[in-house]
Amino acid sequence: MSSDSLPTYADVEAAAAVVAGRAHRTPVLRSRRLDERAGCEVHLKAEHLQRVGAFKFRGALNALSSLDADQRHAGVVAFSSGNHAQAVALAARELGLPAVIVMPHDAPALKVAATQGYGAEVVRYDRYTEDQEQLAHELAASRGMTVIPPYDHPKVIAGQGTAVRELIEDAGELDVIVTPLGGGGLLAGSILAAGALAPGARLYGVEPAAGDDGLRSLREGRIVTIETPRTLADGAQTTHLGRLTFPIIRDGVTGVVTATDEELVEAMRVVAADLKQVVEPTGVLALAAVLSGAVQDTRGARVGVVLSGGNVDLHRFAELVGAP
Amino acid sequence: MSSDSLPTYADVEAAAAVVAGRAHRTPVLRSRRLDERAGCEVHLKAEHLQRVGAFKFRGALNALSSLDADQRHAGVVAFSSGNHAQAVALAARELGLPAVIVMPHDAPALKVAATQGYGAEVVRYDRYTEDQEQLAHELAASRGMTVIPPYDHPKVIAGQGTAVRELIEDAGELDVIVTPLGGGGLLAGSILAAGALAPGARLYGVEPAAGDDGLRSLREGRIVTIETPRTLADGAQTTHLGRLTFPIIRDGVTGVVTATDEELVEAMRVVAADLKQVVEPTGVLALAAVLSGAVQDTRGARVGVVLSGGNVDLHRFAELVGAP
Repeated sequence: MSSDSLPTYADVEAAAAVVAGRAHRTPVLRSRRLDERAGCEVHLKAEHLQRVGAFKFRGALNALSSLDADQRHAGVVAFSSGNHAQAVALAARELGLPAVIVMPHDAPALKVAATQGYGAEVVRYDRYTEDQEQLAHELAASRGMTVIPPYDHPKVIAGQGTAVRELIEDAGELDVIVTPLGGGGLLAGSILAAGALAPGARLYGVEPAAGDDGLRSLREGRIVTIETPRTLADGAQTTHLGRLTFPIIRDGVTGVVTATDEELVEAMRVVAADLKQVVEPTGVLALAAVLSGAVQDTRGARVGVVLSGGNVDLHRFAELVGAP
Repeated sequence: MSSDSLPTYADVEAAAAVVAGRAHRTPVLRSRRLDERAGCEVHLKAEHLQRVGAFKFRGALNALSSLDADQRHAGVVAFSSGNHAQAVALAARELGLPAVIVMPHDAPALKVAATQGYGAEVVRYDRYTEDQEQLAHELAASRGMTVIPPYDHPKVIAGQGTAVRELIEDAGELDVIVTPLGGGGLLAGSILAAGALAPGARLYGVEPAAGDDGLRSLREGRIVTIETPRTLADGAQTTHLGRLTFPIIRDGVTGVVTATDEELVEAMRVVAADLKQVVEPTGVLALAAVLSGAVQDTRGARVGVVLSGGNVDLHRFAELVGAP
């Protein structure tokens, strides 16, 4: 598969075989109290319990597994200060290939240490004077390495789709499926999985209210690029959908809705109180929109929701859920 | 079985059949990071994900299920401001029998509301002028109801033993098993389960350092009663072991060790960071003692640990794990 062709459900199937035994088959969590609050049956796919604490490990592992022997030998480059960086670093270690992660000078020390802990080389850049994507491509060119983009790659999209594939297998028939939406890798993969396994289900993506480029892209029928949004959902601070994710989402999504920072904090509290789980702000995007009513017509429905990640600094978590 | 006879493993087996399908079969959680911190393989039985948020539901359900038709018709009385009260209330609702819970006037409004939400009648008392146990027995006598004690009852002990029974079934062979220790219901039940299913395993109970009556009772060979201890572990603020739990623990435990409040907070942080779980201070007693080294000779061992409950106010949780 060239990295320009759109992935299909067959790619999600193939990815499922790749991640089996290497990624966790995360549980589907339920709570009676949550169901009462939401007015529907909520089935939560617990990807905050995935390796590296986010679904991103699925796509990274699938993309790295698709490399040929020469590419593996040369290794991979990723650019990200978030979960994708750690996912590529761990997947590379698992597969025994070198990885370089391009991170800003002011990236949290903890994330840099975690990435190095997985055995990756970290290359720092100045986010005010340098472009991380360009730097990654230059590095890759000079070392013969392969760039693994965070979402706009068929193997990444197919890998992310394995989460909702498992959700449908474990939860049974679902009327509605809701995922966070940043660059669109998770939502596009979910659309591929649901299209084959839950063709009657309605599919929603949820963006931060401050960064509604996806919603605007659907309305305008083209990829709209915005300024980096200010939002608690740091994992969805993307500025535009991808060349591959956009058409899949355009053709398969029922709707894109948004959640405010206040709704994210409220959803984090609900998850902590009712389910005893620590989930990051980006991770509750989908649930927040179900609780707020932004995802409509859920009353009494069986609703699958992806909790996408749990990587939040504990002090920050405490500040958010502990505030009056 | 009279309520004076010591329970055996056969009672745990019978309890397992009673709780199957009514109590959750909670998962056993693992974390590579936690294993690295602890220097051993830690298998966490996630009873904070049990119904009512604590293992107490197992014992309450088993005790109530053992009542005959007349006793069921008359109903039950429990005294507690903690997890046992809610467990009895929910178990009574499940079995369709009346329940009265005796709670202090200054019990948290949230706990009172939750107990009433389960359909129980709440009778308030003044903790400075009245004795809750005596009040419960008077109520029971006047209404022909049965008192369900929080730990010193053979069916309660047997019910609590089902948690470690499941842990052994799901985790496989264990070298060490560690549980919190308050009145001793959970530890005694665990000893019965492990005696039959993991006879080679070493068994430890962990008390709050401020309330080491169990340790002192073992040393003195008799039930030692202490003043109500001041500790974060409010679920283990018991003043003495029971007539039934003491002999089972005396004959079956490898050792009783303690954890300080600081060690409990550190363990709560580890559980939140490495496992993304919200567990109450009492709930991490066992893990705290593994992490501190109070449970000895665990290096490289397969260690089963019960996380016993997750009922902690979110603001309080945030205060504890968010403190610098």
